[in-house]
Amino acid sequence: MHFADRLVAAVRRVGNPVLVGIDPRPEDLPVGFLDRFPNDRAGVAEALRVFGNNVVDVVAGKVAAVKFQSAYYEAYGPEGVQALHTTSHHARESGLIVIIDGKRNDIGSTAEAYARAYLGKVPVADAFVPSWDADALTVNPYLGVDGISPFVKVASREDKGLFVLVRTSNASAIEFQDLVANGKPVYRHVADRLTGWASPHRGASGYSLVGAVVGATYPAQLAELRACMPGVLFLVPGYGTQGARSVDVAPAFEEDGQGAIVNNSRGLCFAYNRAALKEKYANRWEGAIEEALEEMIQDLSANTPAGRLNASN
Amino acid sequence: MHFADRLVAAVRRVGNPVLVGIDPRPEDLPVGFLDRFPNDRAGVAEALRVFGNNVVDVVAGKVAAVKFQSAYYEAYGPEGVQALHTTSHHARESGLIVIIDGKRNDIGSTAEAYARAYLGKVPVADAFVPSWDADALTVNPYLGVDGISPFVKVASREDKGLFVLVRTSNASAIEFQDLVANGKPVYRHVADRLTGWASPHRGASGYSLVGAVVGATYPAQLAELRACMPGVLFLVPGYGTQGARSVDVAPAFEEDGQGAIVNNSRGLCFAYNRAALKEKYANRWEGAIEEALEEMIQDLSANTPAGRLNASN
Repeated sequence: MHFADRLVAAVRRVGNPVLVGIDPRPEDLPVGFLDRFPNDRAGVAEALRVFGNNVVDVVAGKVAAVKFQSAYYEAYGPEGVQALHTTSHHARESGLIVIIDGKRNDIGSTAEAYARAYLGKVPVADAFVPSWDADALTVNPYLGVDGISPFVKVASREDKGLFVLVRTSNASAIEFQDLVANGKPVYRHVADRLTGWASPHRGASGYSLVGAVVGATYPAQLAELRACMPGVLFLVPGYGTQGARSVDVAPAFEEDGQGAIVNNSRGLCFAYNRAALKEKYANRWEGAIEEALEEMIQDLSANTPAGRLNASN
Repeated sequence: MHFADRLVAAVRRVGNPVLVGIDPRPEDLPVGFLDRFPNDRAGVAEALRVFGNNVVDVVAGKVAAVKFQSAYYEAYGPEGVQALHTTSHHARESGLIVIIDGKRNDIGSTAEAYARAYLGKVPVADAFVPSWDADALTVNPYLGVDGISPFVKVASREDKGLFVLVRTSNASAIEFQDLVANGKPVYRHVADRLTGWASPHRGASGYSLVGAVVGATYPAQLAELRACMPGVLFLVPGYGTQGARSVDVAPAFEEDGQGAIVNNSRGLCFAYNRAALKEKYANRWEGAIEEALEEMIQDLSANTPAGRLNASN
């Protein structure tokens, strides 16, 4: 089944557009969590695996998809990468769509290697076998279409997807992305090219397997980009800890509540560190994540077009 | 010792600016090489490890540095990543400066996680321990300074370096990098900002730990960027298989032959696939790499300012 159709159907099924970000920074793990594991790099990697699996267990069935931030796993070397591999497979087996946030980028056969790695199959003897088998990968567009088409080709063949950075949520995004060339900012050039790359790869839902990352911290650009990128699914970072509220996220959606998934990483998976929830849940940190997730679902339902996802179910 | 000083000294010591790229695509390994390993993903990963170690053994002492393309290792999952970890450590132990070509990019604590992972140390219990311990990492600048400063901070503390993409060597680099804003192309905006980031981090050699990736396939831009980025070391891809010749690479150097390292990946590590060398070396594929490397060293020495490196030794 086409990636976008799978994602759209899963969002409709759960009735919310929340994308749970799993960014396991050891410093932010629940108090005492690391103490259960050996005091070495492999021990911390094992802790990341167990924590990630627990978060998956808390959110499975409640949301459509999870996003793993590769950096926190790569930090612990091959053992950390093994933890990401194991937890991402656990998430898929739990019925979640898995997005790996690696912001990979390269050209030609190297881009193809990344695409095969995360979305496709790699050659072993006379066969091709899956390696990471994620559902989607984030990709950086600075190298132009040479750095995109190998991902599109593999994703198209394997019913997988990609999300290309267009306008990021950080303060210095303006530095290069907002430079104005030929009357429009660079991010708009990226958006327009991306819409062209996406267009031939739409599924029955009308959405393409080529999606876009558009930050919620600049609502005006979010609205502008939503209008000029029909059929492109938005992955929207910036909600919660990064400062964007539901009203800022609202322009990412089409009127029917479709068209976007909204990421929250630290605000969900480290919810137990918020003073109010810390007091309420103490060591039952999974409860804090559950409550924060429910709160985010309600907030988006009440204050964005995503509230219409349930009505139209 | 400051990263740039180490690299400059190593280039002077060997008398050439060649950067050996190790891009182990299984399809390009020597005939029969894979047959020695199990027919599964872990078996291919083990083949990549052995091949990479062999290439390191051929080039150690002859060049200053090697660059590993992470994609080809990530393709084989955690086992592939383990192979990269092992081979990159073997390269460092063999006296080579190790650059990991991962083109990583992110913001805030995530960028910091990548920086700690590849260049710095990661927290384990009450200590910080090295994880990848590479000498330098390639980084993509699309996110602006938020995506650069965490790398600079860690690199500065740990005597490591980074190479930021400025103008890449592929055909579609023009798509976004050459858009003209405020009278200059985007790549030039990146170059000017990068020169600012680099400036406070120069070593005794006059070069900064913040370097730039500038492709050799557009010699005019290479000359333009060399002139406007004093004190910035260039990592120059594009020589060999991608079509750039020594005359195209020449503008990357200062008059004294310093200022750039020139990458060659497939043209060196798969040299045994060239018809002439295949015939001459048959299964002694290491000999083909050695001859191709010697040829590249002579070519750069004869046709670029790098020839002056020996004279000034």
